[in-house]
Parts: sequence; C-alpha cells; structure tokens
Amino acid sequence: MKARIFVTLKPGVLDPQGRAIHHALGGLGFDGVNDVRAGKLIELDVADGTSDADLDAMCRKLLANTVIENYRIEKAAA
Amino acid sequence: MKARIFVTLKPGVLDPQGRAIHHALGGLGFDGVNDVRAGKLIELDVADGTSDADLDAMCRKLLANTVIENYRIEKAAA
Repeated sequence: MKARIFVTLKPGVLDPQGRAIHHALGGLGFDGVNDVRAGKLIELDVADGTSDADLDAMCRKLLANTVIENYRIEKAAA
Repeated sequence: MKARIFVTLKPGVLDPQGRAIHHALGGLGFDGVNDVRAGKLIELDVADGTSDADLDAMCRKLLANTVIENYRIEKAAA
C-alpha cells in the first residue's frame, strides 16, 4: 500500500526556503506570485495491514516536527 | 489562487534521504515499510490569472530539476 505524507510548516513559522524560492521566481520574471511555502512530501510503500494509527505514529515520531509542522496522510490503494 | 507543486525523484534515481528515513523507521520499530521516497511540496499563492503554462514554466525553470525529478501541478480554487 502506498501512503503519501505531506509535511508543511505551520502558518506563522518563518520559511526561508519558501522566501528564497519566491525571490528567485521574481528574478526570473514571474510576477503575480504572492507567497511561497516549501514543504516535504514523503512517499511510503508500506505493508497492506499497516493501520492509520501506525502511519500517524510514524509522522509524530519521525517524519514531522509537530512543534512547527503540520502533516497530512493520504492513503492510496496501489 | 493556490497551486501545489509536487516534486518527486524519478524512479531509479538514488534517494539517500528516503533511505535514511527508511532506516530510521526500522530503528523505531516500524516494520513492514518496503520503500520510502522523499520529495518536495511547494505551495504557491499566485494571482488568479496565472496560466497553466506559467506554472509549468516555473517548475521547469526553477522548482524541479527535470533531469532527475518529476513534477505534478495541482490547482486549488481558494
């Protein structure tokens, strides 16, 4: 089973990487970009029996820093 | 308009970050993880008139390294 974990910085947390991307897009001539936030996407291929609680525990213990980051879990059949 | 860009390594490209996450999950006692791939999620807040071609150009010119990475664009209304 595939699961995708989206890890994003919480609102209000400073995002230097996003700021740098925003600046670089401006330099390339892409106007009209109001904001950029950089996050992580982690694709897991786990055993079919893996429970939602297990996936949640993986996020809390390792994949996301819950002090400054939010995470969302999306499960796919294939 | 919000747009989310998912940048993932192409299949076959070595992913040391994913390998490290895989190993760490094993160390935490999470068995049954077959594979981990690490990617990037970039959330853009762009002007409403931004065309798909512009978003595509941003990905090709800056956000993704198309030699080793794939990207996918997802547009959201809000």
